[in-house]
Amino acid sequence: MRCQIQTHKNMSGGSKKDTGLKLTARKVRIFLKYGVHPTLFYLSASTPPPPFDTQGQDFPEWYSQVITLSEMIEYYDISGCYILRPWAYSIWESIQGFFDGEIKKLGVQNAYFPLFVAKSALEKEKDHVEGFAPEVAWVTKSGESELAEPIAIRPTSETIMYPAFAKWVRSHRDLPLRLNQWTNVVRWEFKHPTPFLRTREFLWQEGHSAFATRAEADVEVLQILDLYARVYEELLAVPVIKGRKSEKEKFAGGLYTTTVEAFIPTNGRAIQGATSHCLGQNFAKMFDISFVDNETKPQLVWQNSWGLTTRTIGVCVMVHGDDTGLVLPPRVAPVQVVIVAVWTSKDGEEVKEGVLARAREAAACLSGAGIRAKCDERDNYSAGWKYAHWEQKGVPLRLEVGPRDLAAGRFEGVRRFDGSKVEGGVQFDCETLPNRVGDILQGIQASMLHKARRERDSHLSIVTEWKDFVPALDRGDIVLAPWCELVEMEEWVKEQTGPKGAATVAAAATAAAATATDEVEASKGLTGAAKTLCIPLVQPPMPEGTLCFTGCGKPAVSWALWGRSY
Amino acid sequence: MRCQIQTHKNMSGGSKKDTGLKLTARKVRIFLKYGVHPTLFYLSASTPPPPFDTQGQDFPEWYSQVITLSEMIEYYDISGCYILRPWAYSIWESIQGFFDGEIKKLGVQNAYFPLFVAKSALEKEKDHVEGFAPEVAWVTKSGESELAEPIAIRPTSETIMYPAFAKWVRSHRDLPLRLNQWTNVVRWEFKHPTPFLRTREFLWQEGHSAFATRAEADVEVLQILDLYARVYEELLAVPVIKGRKSEKEKFAGGLYTTTVEAFIPTNGRAIQGATSHCLGQNFAKMFDISFVDNETKPQLVWQNSWGLTTRTIGVCVMVHGDDTGLVLPPRVAPVQVVIVAVWTSKDGEEVKEGVLARAREAAACLSGAGIRAKCDERDNYSAGWKYAHWEQKGVPLRLEVGPRDLAAGRFEGVRRFDGSKVEGGVQFDCETLPNRVGDILQGIQASMLHKARRERDSHLSIVTEWKDFVPALDRGDIVLAPWCELVEMEEWVKEQTGPKGAATVAAAATAAAATATDEVEASKGLTGAAKTLCIPLVQPPMPEGTLCFTGCGKPAVSWALWGRSY
Repeated sequence: MRCQIQTHKNMSGGSKKDTGLKLTARKVRIFLKYGVHPTLFYLSASTPPPPFDTQGQDFPEWYSQVITLSEMIEYYDISGCYILRPWAYSIWESIQGFFDGEIKKLGVQNAYFPLFVAKSALEKEKDHVEGFAPEVAWVTKSGESELAEPIAIRPTSETIMYPAFAKWVRSHRDLPLRLNQWTNVVRWEFKHPTPFLRTREFLWQEGHSAFATRAEADVEVLQILDLYARVYEELLAVPVIKGRKSEKEKFAGGLYTTTVEAFIPTNGRAIQGATSHCLGQNFAKMFDISFVDNETKPQLVWQNSWGLTTRTIGVCVMVHGDDTGLVLPPRVAPVQVVIVAVWTSKDGEEVKEGVLARAREAAACLSGAGIRAKCDERDNYSAGWKYAHWEQKGVPLRLEVGPRDLAAGRFEGVRRFDGSKVEGGVQFDCETLPNRVGDILQGIQASMLHKARRERDSHLSIVTEWKDFVPALDRGDIVLAPWCELVEMEEWVKEQTGPKGAATVAAAATAAAATATDEVEASKGLTGAAKTLCIPLVQPPMPEGTLCFTGCGKPAVSWALWGRSY
Repeated sequence: MRCQIQTHKNMSGGSKKDTGLKLTARKVRIFLKYGVHPTLFYLSASTPPPPFDTQGQDFPEWYSQVITLSEMIEYYDISGCYILRPWAYSIWESIQGFFDGEIKKLGVQNAYFPLFVAKSALEKEKDHVEGFAPEVAWVTKSGESELAEPIAIRPTSETIMYPAFAKWVRSHRDLPLRLNQWTNVVRWEFKHPTPFLRTREFLWQEGHSAFATRAEADVEVLQILDLYARVYEELLAVPVIKGRKSEKEKFAGGLYTTTVEAFIPTNGRAIQGATSHCLGQNFAKMFDISFVDNETKPQLVWQNSWGLTTRTIGVCVMVHGDDTGLVLPPRVAPVQVVIVAVWTSKDGEEVKEGVLARAREAAACLSGAGIRAKCDERDNYSAGWKYAHWEQKGVPLRLEVGPRDLAAGRFEGVRRFDGSKVEGGVQFDCETLPNRVGDILQGIQASMLHKARRERDSHLSIVTEWKDFVPALDRGDIVLAPWCELVEMEEWVKEQTGPKGAATVAAAATAAAATATDEVEASKGLTGAAKTLCIPLVQPPMPEGTLCFTGCGKPAVSWALWGRSY
């Protein structure tokens, strides 16, 4: 027996495999638990609670199902492009609200620069263009006419903004110049696309600033990095490690790059969360952004750029989601509390009206206090169906009210992230309800971060010798190791752990048979080359005489974090 | 004597003419008035207060100077693309804040759909694609590789969204579906580009909804139109006329289009402010967006789409600006109140510190109360220079504090829009200051709308006979006239008033010599073909037997508003 959901109905390109759902014993148990016949799930497009592949079974498939069935993502007929539905977009709005407010407090102003960039401007900074050129989408026609010159769509906006910076900055009085924009960018990657994580068009903010001194630029880099860490930890309940990128991994054309790195426990992959770059004076030189200082001497500015993308949402899904679906942290959940009235066909009309009225009252009371609450009033679904529906969509807290609860003047409360019941229930009293629910939500937020941190920490290995490195990776860990910081040793590690490396001969055999190595990596989870994630800002002590873990014989310069990464 | 400001340093395409500023007698008077030597203006890139061409002299040139020198716009090296600097972008943020809040109250949710659309989807609705095809920008390459199929950049998103709508809508329970997105769109027009008003890339919101019944769709069309009118009238202080577009002017592929129409008194041109379309069931048929109603019968949905663009900002500039520069209405002004401390070199340090401290205190007090106030503390500019600077940037209210004001415990207040002084000054007392200033700002907001409405109304002619039509247009008026509503008569009017029409023989001679007719139209202001702006929703009484004003002999069906339009 097999039933199909066409989640990828129109999907083309990258991955063409069949994503139909197989009806497993586990799913049958779910059906039985919620008392819903499988066919019921397919009567309406309004997201029935469906069965999932488990995370462990097939993580990419689990991810694809969770984000489509929770109504976050709709696949689109251009490969690498996805539709962000309101359930996902509102998370982005929460992130925007927080981050935009914080950077405005720092004195950053929003602006909007064009989508297009002329070839000559794009190619002005050599290292920079080399970093982006293979992924640039080119417009060559309008209507039926060929353009005189092809025009690029921004992969990032350094080369669009900096000619203007050069015009605006003349005197030290024009500094600092700190601008930000919320836009779409396009990077036509040919790696296997993954919604949110690696897409050909994505949404982000990009901040660009110019300062008179390096000291000021250095300060901003870390101010912004702190805000990125707060987005992950305070909003998304995802722990991150702040660090500096290696020379090999830094932003093309910049001086140094800082990053926040997250970790996906299910497949042992690290993922870059957001980056804050100091560009030094390199772009200033290329674009001639100079000013007259207060001793009337000409000087080049010091520049930063920094960006946070819709990848945030995908990381949140991967870190918190479980076999029942999405698990959203309260601060970004589009609906924080769902209230379900419970009655059966045996109950009279009066009972039904009573519990429904109470559920509505509670929703109104919570909404009035600024809590995103929703009363599910639909009478064509059972309470069990509704539980599963909102669990799948990751709503942090469910309040239930049945006839007995009504009589007792309380709600049953169930937390999504661990399935636990709120002890003693939640008293219904509009005076106290918002505070009580607010406290529960705050508790959930804190516990989710705590849980994710504990999980991440249990996957953090400390390795000082090469022999322990690959085994740690193969356990699904990220690895902190003393490193000489030489580019050639990072390349050596990559080679050793990549498909051609001795350590992964078996995986390599499979990879050779596939057209795209990354696709295999993505689906297997535990293969693929390791690289540095960052050199953490907070460094453990380094005992004197410590050598590089690679066995190259050189002294270690710093503890570096390594891992298989998205 | 002639001094050049390179406002268009990198501008290419559309208009290549020299926009250097000539130093006229009037400008010399300005210099004298503010006690600033002209050369001072060019020492810093931070927008010196420069002289303008007057509006009457050369309106397009005035516009270009005002928007660049007030730091709203920077020209860009791709024709038709412009940089929106913070002074302009923050107006867009004010509009977004208001409109986004209002549509969410109506139940609209935000989402994000891809920038790209496949050729086949774009061409699905024939009338629609014909309306947009000539302006579509095509991506044909990524990196060095040709794409298998060219991909279009969205000129609007009907064809991107509606295949997804077809998947999401199954049952009447899935309706209404009401989505909105804030995005950039690209229309590669070859008409003369004008910043904000006609640009190849622009920012907008586009709302798209699907309903079970036409009645619901009709209601939404007008709800949204009301919000558009409120953006113009309440935020931008620009009066608009709400109406329905003629068949010729309606949205390609839609059922009917409603619009808010504004008017630029300086050149007598009307301008479409924003449109709210009922698409009927046409797209539903093409994209198969159907649902099962509550009697289990299949039905097509009724759809709307509606959009408001960054054009709003340009209309605001044109309607309110004057020979001194920008005039911003308080509700959208990035800075609502500027506070300038006044001292001369003859005053001692103590006096200077006293007035500066008071100015700072007032700014802090107002900011604390949510008023966007700024204290201009720069000591390298004279008070007169600062007045001119902030006048040019259109700040609605200036508070001045000199040694005598300090002693008297008050500020001198000057309104930007009419140059009037606040009678009796403004007492300094942090208890009362925010309310007092708030009242003055509200008064300015109301007066600006009132003034603009009076001006618009004085340019509204009522015409019932053809002989009076062109003379009214040539006075710079818009014309309300009884019309038969036949498409051929609108085409006839267009022909008669266009470059080949008898009425504009002289203008036509000039136009023939130019490469682009529109460019000539734009610079002359009073030439060009007339068209219907709208059929106003509020109709004057139509006496029985009234004939169409064109003299076609058919009975008039409605009063239509005609004009030369952007």
